[in-house]
Amino acid sequence: MYTTHIGTSTPDSINIYGYDLCSEVIGHAGLADIVFLGAQGRLPTGNESKMLDALMVGIAEHGFTPSSLAARLTWLGAPEATQAAVAAGLLGAGSVYLGAMELTARALQEAREAAPGESKEKTAVEILDRFEATGQKVPGFGHPTHRPRDPRTARFFELAEEWGFLGPHSTLLQAIHSEMERRRGRLITLNGAGAFGAVLSDLGFRWQQVRTVVVAARAVGLVGHIAEEAARGTADSTAQALFRHVEHHTDYQPQR
Amino acid sequence: MYTTHIGTSTPDSINIYGYDLCSEVIGHAGLADIVFLGAQGRLPTGNESKMLDALMVGIAEHGFTPSSLAARLTWLGAPEATQAAVAAGLLGAGSVYLGAMELTARALQEAREAAPGESKEKTAVEILDRFEATGQKVPGFGHPTHRPRDPRTARFFELAEEWGFLGPHSTLLQAIHSEMERRRGRLITLNGAGAFGAVLSDLGFRWQQVRTVVVAARAVGLVGHIAEEAARGTADSTAQALFRHVEHHTDYQPQR
Amino acid sequence: MYTTHIGTSTPDSINIYGYDLCSEVIGHAGLADIVFLGAQGRLPTGNESKMLDALMVGIAEHGFTPSSLAARLTWLGAPEATQAAVAAGLLGAGSVYLGAMELTARALQEAREAAPGESKEKTAVEILDRFEATGQKVPGFGHPTHRPRDPRTARFFELAEEWGFLGPHSTLLQAIHSEMERRRGRLITLNGAGAFGAVLSDLGFRWQQVRTVVVAARAVGLVGHIAEEAARGTADSTAQALFRHVEHHTDYQPQR
Amino acid sequence: MYTTHIGTSTPDSINIYGYDLCSEVIGHAGLADIVFLGAQGRLPTGNESKMLDALMVGIAEHGFTPSSLAARLTWLGAPEATQAAVAAGLLGAGSVYLGAMELTARALQEAREAAPGESKEKTAVEILDRFEATGQKVPGFGHPTHRPRDPRTARFFELAEEWGFLGPHSTLLQAIHSEMERRRGRLITLNGAGAFGAVLSDLGFRWQQVRTVVVAARAVGLVGHIAEEAARGTADSTAQALFRHVEHHTDYQPQR
Repeated sequence: MYTTHIGTSTPDSINIYGYDLCSEVIGHAGLADIVFLGAQGRLPTGNESKMLDALMVGIAEHGFTPSSLAARLTWLGAPEATQAAVAAGLLGAGSVYLGAMELTARALQEAREAAPGESKEKTAVEILDRFEATGQKVPGFGHPTHRPRDPRTARFFELAEEWGFLGPHSTLLQAIHSEMERRRGRLITLNGAGAFGAVLSDLGFRWQQVRTVVVAARAVGLVGHIAEEAARGTADSTAQALFRHVEHHTDYQPQR
Repeated sequence: MYTTHIGTSTPDSINIYGYDLCSEVIGHAGLADIVFLGAQGRLPTGNESKMLDALMVGIAEHGFTPSSLAARLTWLGAPEATQAAVAAGLLGAGSVYLGAMELTARALQEAREAAPGESKEKTAVEILDRFEATGQKVPGFGHPTHRPRDPRTARFFELAEEWGFLGPHSTLLQAIHSEMERRRGRLITLNGAGAFGAVLSDLGFRWQQVRTVVVAARAVGLVGHIAEEAARGTADSTAQALFRHVEHHTDYQPQR
Repeated sequence: MYTTHIGTSTPDSINIYGYDLCSEVIGHAGLADIVFLGAQGRLPTGNESKMLDALMVGIAEHGFTPSSLAARLTWLGAPEATQAAVAAGLLGAGSVYLGAMELTARALQEAREAAPGESKEKTAVEILDRFEATGQKVPGFGHPTHRPRDPRTARFFELAEEWGFLGPHSTLLQAIHSEMERRRGRLITLNGAGAFGAVLSDLGFRWQQVRTVVVAARAVGLVGHIAEEAARGTADSTAQALFRHVEHHTDYQPQR
Repeated sequence: MYTTHIGTSTPDSINIYGYDLCSEVIGHAGLADIVFLGAQGRLPTGNESKMLDALMVGIAEHGFTPSSLAARLTWLGAPEATQAAVAAGLLGAGSVYLGAMELTARALQEAREAAPGESKEKTAVEILDRFEATGQKVPGFGHPTHRPRDPRTARFFELAEEWGFLGPHSTLLQAIHSEMERRRGRLITLNGAGAFGAVLSDLGFRWQQVRTVVVAARAVGLVGHIAEEAARGTADSTAQALFRHVEHHTDYQPQR
């Protein structure tokens, strides 16, 4: 037998994570609350709920990205199977794209576990020293458009403070930010992905869970991309327009 | 150029669907509101928001299903790429599994467009006559566990009535239900998937958009499945347990 | 217990479909032979093997397509998870793109089953009458580039004749082609996808199996696309170049 | 413009990697040759072709695995979208499952690049010392069923020797094997995945390309799994049988 503890059903009731679905969840919980429930095994408090909504809403939609274009191209080939378009749009959420949330959460959580009780200023210095020594990019910093400040970052931290989640991970990331700007002598963007990873950590999510939260938020955002393609139809699709910029070229000289 | 109307960015602001992301969306909208925004191009009203949350929350989680098992098995092979596990879990949302929401919405919307102004009782009779003539299964009815009533159905309709969305599609489905039980002389389950498709139609979603809404809800539910696997670890995983029930057998007699 | 008849293992041997993998398959069979084995339960004869290789090789690679671009974009986000890039590249093999092979095979197989023993000329007339009556597009005809002839079609049929597979499905498709050109009074392309579906039918594949054969061929072709992206690196990637043609625009006027 | 060098088309010809598709590839090349062509930019020689076929054929099919079960479960939900079932079946080809081929190729290639000209015995000792120092598992060794020898390993190396590809990567892996057995004083399985990665390296594939080759081979193997499910039908499917072993259990005690 393989067993899940996620829920049970009887002919006239459904239980998820110990709650009666119909009387305690439907009509009471928002969609993001189910993300919290799945990750932490209980429904969030009012403030936890609002904070998670704010974070997920803030990253759900980003216009044209590798992710949304892959979804739109897939829709063009299989408009009858929109689940495949959504899935294709999620598959690029890896180390390069949408990975910064997980990487930031991991760096912050591991640093705090490695040195519990240490001041955030000292931990920030150690993290930066370590990343600089190995030449690795510190996750959560830099943005091609939002310079020198990412507007989401201030908003996430403002709400986190208002609702009580500007905790040790967020303030550690802010300390890293200050130290990094001090060392380099210029303004550097603490990006929205980094702030997302920090506040989500302060909301109690383990770093191993972060990517699935990001992916669920993007699945929500992809509803709009596929709706936009569907409203245009295949002949006038975004994806068709894209092919006008394609060039096929061959310079292989195979030996025969 | 290929163009999206979904949003724009400047160095210090992000606009999605005409709203300023940081001041008008983050902190104000819930996750499901972004589904509404993508499908309908505007943020929902308070009641629309609560209704969509209720619907999506009601179908986000279903325990072990082909969908969640495919996600868990994929996680077992690639725990470092959880986006792939979520994507795999969504790919089976096709005609058989999770398709009833789209099929019901389509049947209801097409019937109303074909005979605008007709009474729901008359349309219900016509739909049933047509399905019976072709031997096709009427979507939205029947359930292996929830007999003779699906508890989600009553809850969805109760909230739809309270919040003002028990509209023409929902009442048409109820009329079909009554007529079907009258014809067969016994209780028949109007399932949660059917009620979902009907109320979502009354919320203004076109049937072509329904599957992406369902898929986004399941992406949310999969967060918990992957979290449960991750908490157990690969050696003790659900998927490993499953392999104790596998039997390999060969009775091919190839000609050589 | 759930059982597969596909194969068994002992500590020192592996059996697939009744063959000893190490002594009868490895070193004797080509890759496409495993496609034949999976679909038909036996290894192909020499000519069957050559014919299936010819067909699959002929559709494995098509340059930039929605499929290969989705794969490349996914690679750009997750270069460490190339299985996700390949999967994304396959997901658009639906009704519009890469669907013609399955549709043609289905139309031919169903027409022959519906009227066994009927002459191909008569069946061709009936098929065209039926498609014209419903306004549906006849699968396997037309091509945006290859006009008035698709070079793959002649090649597939030439080899099918040489190796003994220009059977009833292929000749039926040729009869449909002749009748269609006669009716319209001009040359019309019988495309490579159509010829693929016809010859694959004559090789004994059921139409329900055709799409998986197509998908396996494209998985092979995607090796080269991902290799090309990887050789360029993320900064200079095809997908990055594509973003220079993107335009974000907003004309939503939301009521607030 | 974004450009690919993979191929070009004119109305009456198709060129891939510098070859005329119809006259030089179709009818001459096998399916695995296109894998070689995509990865290395030229068609293989006769022996290279046979070796790659042997390797890919040897790993295409493995009975019930997380991969094939995810494909079958996805088929059960969406039998009309078999591309989604194949894609789901590939997504778990990550670090745990099917990752050993890439990991072995990477370890061998990096070791040889780090110490060119060094004897294989010395490199083997260094590799083992390094893995033992960090406590990491050496890739390519161990198997739950095939003990103490994996029958594919001997077969791969036998053919590699016969066809001239028992090169520096394969012999280095053999040297590691000898040294490992010497150190531990017992027989240890050098598994088929390891031998695959070594011989593929000697065939000229870079380790970054290995996973896509593995994935293409599995796409071929999945044709048979989906065919087996389709032949049984949804009601009697493998996946349905699997659900008889499911147990839903709840021990959450949520605070309300």
